[in-house]
Parts: sequence; structure tokens; C-alpha cells
Amino acid sequence: MAKVFLPKGTRDLMPEQMNRRLMVINTVRDVFARYGFDPLETPAFERIETLTGKYGDEGEKLMFRILKRGEGGTKGEVDLALRYDLTVPLARVMAMNPGIPLPFKRSQIQPVWRADRPQRGRFREFYQCDVDTVGTDSPLADAECIAVVHDSLTALGFTDFTIRVNHRQLLRALAVAIEAEDQETSMLQALDKLDKVGRNGVEKELLERSFSRDQAHQLWRYLDGAEIPDAAPFEQQLKRIVELALSMGVDPDRVRVDRTLARGLDYYTGPVFETVLNGDYSGSVSGGGRYDGLVGMFSGKGDVPAVGVSLGIERIFMLMEEMGLVPATRTATHVWATVFSVETMAATLESASILRTAGVNVQVSTRMGKIGKQLKDASSKGIPFALVCGPEEAAAGTAVLKNLTTGEQVTGTPDELVRHLGV
Amino acid sequence: MAKVFLPKGTRDLMPEQMNRRLMVINTVRDVFARYGFDPLETPAFERIETLTGKYGDEGEKLMFRILKRGEGGTKGEVDLALRYDLTVPLARVMAMNPGIPLPFKRSQIQPVWRADRPQRGRFREFYQCDVDTVGTDSPLADAECIAVVHDSLTALGFTDFTIRVNHRQLLRALAVAIEAEDQETSMLQALDKLDKVGRNGVEKELLERSFSRDQAHQLWRYLDGAEIPDAAPFEQQLKRIVELALSMGVDPDRVRVDRTLARGLDYYTGPVFETVLNGDYSGSVSGGGRYDGLVGMFSGKGDVPAVGVSLGIERIFMLMEEMGLVPATRTATHVWATVFSVETMAATLESASILRTAGVNVQVSTRMGKIGKQLKDASSKGIPFALVCGPEEAAAGTAVLKNLTTGEQVTGTPDELVRHLGV
Repeated sequence: MAKVFLPKGTRDLMPEQMNRRLMVINTVRDVFARYGFDPLETPAFERIETLTGKYGDEGEKLMFRILKRGEGGTKGEVDLALRYDLTVPLARVMAMNPGIPLPFKRSQIQPVWRADRPQRGRFREFYQCDVDTVGTDSPLADAECIAVVHDSLTALGFTDFTIRVNHRQLLRALAVAIEAEDQETSMLQALDKLDKVGRNGVEKELLERSFSRDQAHQLWRYLDGAEIPDAAPFEQQLKRIVELALSMGVDPDRVRVDRTLARGLDYYTGPVFETVLNGDYSGSVSGGGRYDGLVGMFSGKGDVPAVGVSLGIERIFMLMEEMGLVPATRTATHVWATVFSVETMAATLESASILRTAGVNVQVSTRMGKIGKQLKDASSKGIPFALVCGPEEAAAGTAVLKNLTTGEQVTGTPDELVRHLGV
Repeated sequence: MAKVFLPKGTRDLMPEQMNRRLMVINTVRDVFARYGFDPLETPAFERIETLTGKYGDEGEKLMFRILKRGEGGTKGEVDLALRYDLTVPLARVMAMNPGIPLPFKRSQIQPVWRADRPQRGRFREFYQCDVDTVGTDSPLADAECIAVVHDSLTALGFTDFTIRVNHRQLLRALAVAIEAEDQETSMLQALDKLDKVGRNGVEKELLERSFSRDQAHQLWRYLDGAEIPDAAPFEQQLKRIVELALSMGVDPDRVRVDRTLARGLDYYTGPVFETVLNGDYSGSVSGGGRYDGLVGMFSGKGDVPAVGVSLGIERIFMLMEEMGLVPATRTATHVWATVFSVETMAATLESASILRTAGVNVQVSTRMGKIGKQLKDASSKGIPFALVCGPEEAAAGTAVLKNLTTGEQVTGTPDELVRHLGV
């Protein structure tokens, strides 16, 4: 028999991971809904014309292309490709639904596919988790991006994080101020590495990128707080956005305007956000910003104001595991119902049914007799409690509930056991 | 600007549908967990070798094939294809995880892709929703299939359905009894149409399929209850399975052994299940059975006992809408917070924040002033309540909550409004 393998760079999400992921996804979905972001799903694939030219040469190479069905396929023709992100599909949805009431606030939690070189924690299929508000330039929408990230991370149990906020136009004013107007992108690319390489590293890179020592010196001066010419309106905007976020209940210690934040992506046009965990955890867990040019790309209506934020949900899954923020439960089953004999089976099933109705997850052993072996089965599956219903208990309408960690046992009617479990 | 389209046979799941779908999915996930079925997800695509030869010629044609990245792709080479069902991926998971504790009980709710001719309610991307128990031949596992379907449909609000149960070996005994041992498949194909074409239709088809009138006559006699030779063990099995299901709390009126149930699929080897809604709703909402030959296909271990059931979740979404079992809410937002002026903004956001903390979904208007226009916005989005916080309310720490259906208004502190909303 041939051996089978997973496709390169993919994985199965086994119950232990899935239970954790569903918990995280349900938590952030609830937060999104609290702010009026309603869920959207789009197809896994888009027409190749929809995706081509949107992600640069590199993106083009990483796209999974689908052969035409029927004759075209035998000739190698391609008509579809797997979704590469959730933003182009959103732009398509907006173009195809011109009558949709604005602002349109949507959340989207779905996998995307990129044929990147697989690495630890990096896969070719991974979930993205975005909220976006389309059709308004109100600073409320920007502030909500901050609030949603704040509330999501807080709800998941993260306590020590910083949401950094900056403004793309402020960075532009900064480039103008150091007479690097034509090298803005280059300046941002160097600055974006600050967290990783420090000031000396950025300075070295700036010189390599043919900035002068004086320009580098000026840059630090502005980043350290000197007033940037013509940047006041953007400073004001950021101040207002943070103020609104605080009114929404955001902890003032968790948000900070930071002139050094230079998110790489070209398409941001206004405020930008990035969230880092403080302490030993490098890299960001969320990023976003205002990108007024992108959503209108298919509608031919010119700029459509839009602002959004992405939770780095794959990273969050990993970090929560590392930090012990989610219990490592291999199963969602609470109680393993052992089966003593054919005669006690009905009583056992009826007890299990009462527990289930009360919200307890009960798995019934398909093995019979030899209770010790059955209890071992429960432990091997990571189930915390076992139910034992022998002939005496069956006759009395009771059962024994055994805590498989402590060994503690209680006997009672199913209703009493439900109360004991504290459901 | 080029117009954009959806790929043929696909759709966007807009908020109205998504809210309904998530409600259904969360409900059935809860039921699955009650019985110890833990969630699994597998990648959207599998290696082409894994899928080839598993779905017959027809399936092969409907598969979405993915071009190799890099050089192979320019030569039209294919190395992957999109998942066609959830059963072959399960067999692959079992083969790749030989140490997994058995029985392995998994639920899986994910889309599959088939390039079928699109029709009303039939799409090229659609969700399947399966539970399977692998590694035991205990009748408990078969009975749980019935219980899970029963509890899922009940939890979703369906009241009048019948879970029909039959046995593949009983159908074989039936074929032998009418001396059609070599035409068993043909007999089943004819019989499978009973619901659609009635007895006369099936009889006509049997004659066309070169069965004799006497064979057809014998067939009805057995289907009407005459004892089928050598079928007693299978009758006993079915009786036991139904008995166990009733012990699990299944309503006896919702399950029925039915000798005429002839589920088409070749791979079933034991009990088979199919659920129909009674009344005017044709077609099944669930189907499954025991298929001991399939899960072992990659492991080379010969037969691996397995039994499972699929909820026809796309059909269930549609039916629940038609039958009014889910409210047609266009948004999950409960309250639309209007914004009177810049001065009242902070008070409004603080009220909204208190409501959110209590579990109320609040969307804040990005339009300011002109409350009438803002209330219209709320109605156009289908939001049931509006919050108004003018200068007086802001000063008093209160707000007005307006029911947008009845026009009723109450004034109170945010906490009082939460109680009024009954959250």
C-alpha cells in the first residue's frame, strides 16, 4: 500500500489544537460583533484576473493556480487561484455590491494560501483574521481598530501589550523634513528594522542606502520629539483617535503614539497600528491602518475610505500555547462513561444523557467490563472525569463520578453529579 | 476599470447568511462535543495521488487541480487538488497517525469543492459536516450517529423528522431471497427512487432492469414485512442500535427501521441511516452508515471499522430559512449608538462601552448630528434599537434607548438600559 503524506507546508489541525483555535476564534468573533463588525466569508478561490497584479512579482509566484476543468485543463489553462489575502476579496465584494449601506463593517476569519518556503510556525495554508470599516473617514473607525485589538487581546488573557500608533503622512512629513522626500520608502524600510537592529543598525542601513550622516542625525532628533514641520494636523488626528479609543474603554497604558512605527506596506495612507507583546516575545500580534486607495480598485469610483486591522491569529494561537494562556486539553470531553456490563448499559446511557442535557460533554466507552482498562482509556485521551455505574448504582438510579487527577470519588444521582461538576 | 465577478458556481456569504450559519454551526458543534466528537480540520488541498482513484471517473472530472509552483507549472504539471469530501482526508489522517487512541471520534465542518454544474442551491464550494467514529464495531457508535442527528436537528428547532435505519447486509439478504444476488446494486438503485417515483415507478424500473414480475412481487412481500431468510442477525443488530439510541434520549417517534431505505453509496457495509423531514420537504437532511472498508485504504491494515453520519448542512441552512426557524437578522448588532455632537461623543462612547461589557453588540454611527438621518441608517441596516445621548443626557450620565420597531423610548443610566434590554 502506498504511503500517504500531507502536501508540503500544510498540517492537520488535530482536536487539541482545534479546541484551542475554536475558543480563540469564538472569543474574537464576540468582540468583533460587540463593535458591529458582522462576519463575511468569500470563496476559497477567485478568478485569476481578480488576483493578478495585486501582490507584486513575489506574490504572483506564491499563488496557487487552479487548472480549468474540461478541455482547457489539458492545455494547461488556468482560470482560478486560491485566495492570497482577505483584502482583495473585500474589494471585489464592495465592487459587486454597490448598494450596500455604508459604512460597511465586516470581520473575516478564513484561511489564505501562499506557497512560501515552509518554516517553523509558517505554513502554506494559514488563517487570517481581519476587521475593516469601508466607506467612512471618521476617526471613530480608526479608534475602533485600536479598541477591537485591545478588547480581543484582553479577552484572550494577554495583559502586557502595547498598541503602537503612527500616521503615514507624519512619516512623509518626516522624510520631507530630513530632505529625503524622494527616498521616503527607503527611509521607512530602514526604520522598520528598528526593533530588530536598534539605532546603530538603522543608522548603518541608512548610510548604505545613501542617506547622509546629517540626515540620520536629523531623523533621530525628530523621532526623539522635535516638532516635525507641517506634521501638526496628523499629530492632531492621532491624538483624537487615541482619545476616542480611551472613551471606548481602552486602557491608556496599552496604547502609545510612536513616531518610529513604520509599517512596511505601501498601501497605507493615514493612521497605522501595530501591536507588540512586551517582554521576551518579539514580532507583532496585530497590524493595520487606513488604506483609502485599495478598496475602490475594482469599482472605478476612485478612492474609497477604508481602515482595518488584522489579528495575527496563527501567532496568537502559538503564543497562547507558549504562555500557558489556554489549558492544553486534548479533548473537549469532560466525562468518560465506563460500561460495566450489558445489563447496566441502559442505566449508564441514561445518566450520560442527563449530564449532556445539563451541558456536560460525555463520551461513552465502547469497551465493556474491566473498569481499570476503561479508566486507562480515559487517561490516555486526557479526559478529567470518569463515570462508573455498576449493578448497585444502576438499581439505585445513581452513579459514581471519579476525578481522574485526584482520585476523589462521589456517588449521586445524575442531577447531583451535574451539581458536583459545577456546570 | 474592469468589472469583477465571482468564480462560476460560488457565492459570498454575506453577514445575514453568515450570522445564521455560525449559529447553526455552533449549535451542532456543541452537540458533537456532548458525545465526545472532537473537531478536526485538514488542509483545503491534498496531494493529487491521495485523491486520484477515490471518487470514480465522474469525481475525477469534477476535481479542482492545482498547478505546480515554479517550473512544473509552466509545463502544466499538477501536484495538488482541492478536497472533494471529508472522508478521504480522514483516512489519510488515520494512516499518518497510527498511534492515535481508538476509537477516534472526530467532527469536521469544512468546505469541499466540486466543479458540478451549478444549480439553485447547489454550489461548487459547499460545507460538509461529518462525525465519524473510527476503530470500533460497537453498536454504541452506530447508535450515537442516530443520537447526534436527533439532538442536532432538535437543537436547531426541527420537530417533525424521521431517522430511517436499515442494514446493508439485510438488503443483500433481500437480493438473495429474490434470487437477484448478482443484481444487488441494480436492485438498490431502483429501490433508492421509491420516495420519488412510488411503488409503480420502482416496479417499472425493475422490469426495465430485467427483473421478473415475480421478483418484483417477492420484493414487495419482503419489504412489507415477510421474514427475509438469513436476515435475522441484521434485524437484531438494528433493533439493538435503536434500543441504545432510545437509552441515549432519542425520541422513539423520530427513528424507524425501514427495509426500503437503500442509500446509494457502494461503500456502506452495515447499518445505514437517512433522515427526512416529514411534510412537504423532500430530500434528506442527513445520511450515513457503517463503512468498514474505507478508512483503512491508506494504512494497509485491511478493514478498519468506522461509522459516521453527515448533516446536510447547506440544505439545513436553506430549510431553516424557508421554515422561519432562524430570525432573518441582517446584522448581529443590537444597538445603534447615534452621535449628537462632538461634545457628547465621549459620553456616548462610554455608554456604548458599558453596554458592550454587558454583552450587547453596539455599533456607533460615524455620521454626526441630524439624529433622524442616523435613525434611518440604523433601520436600513436592520438594527433593532438606537441609543440617543444629547447634551442633557450626557450631563446626567444617562441615555435614551429607542425601540426602532415599536417607537417605545426609555431613559436611564447605561446599567439600567442593559437591564431593560434583558441581557
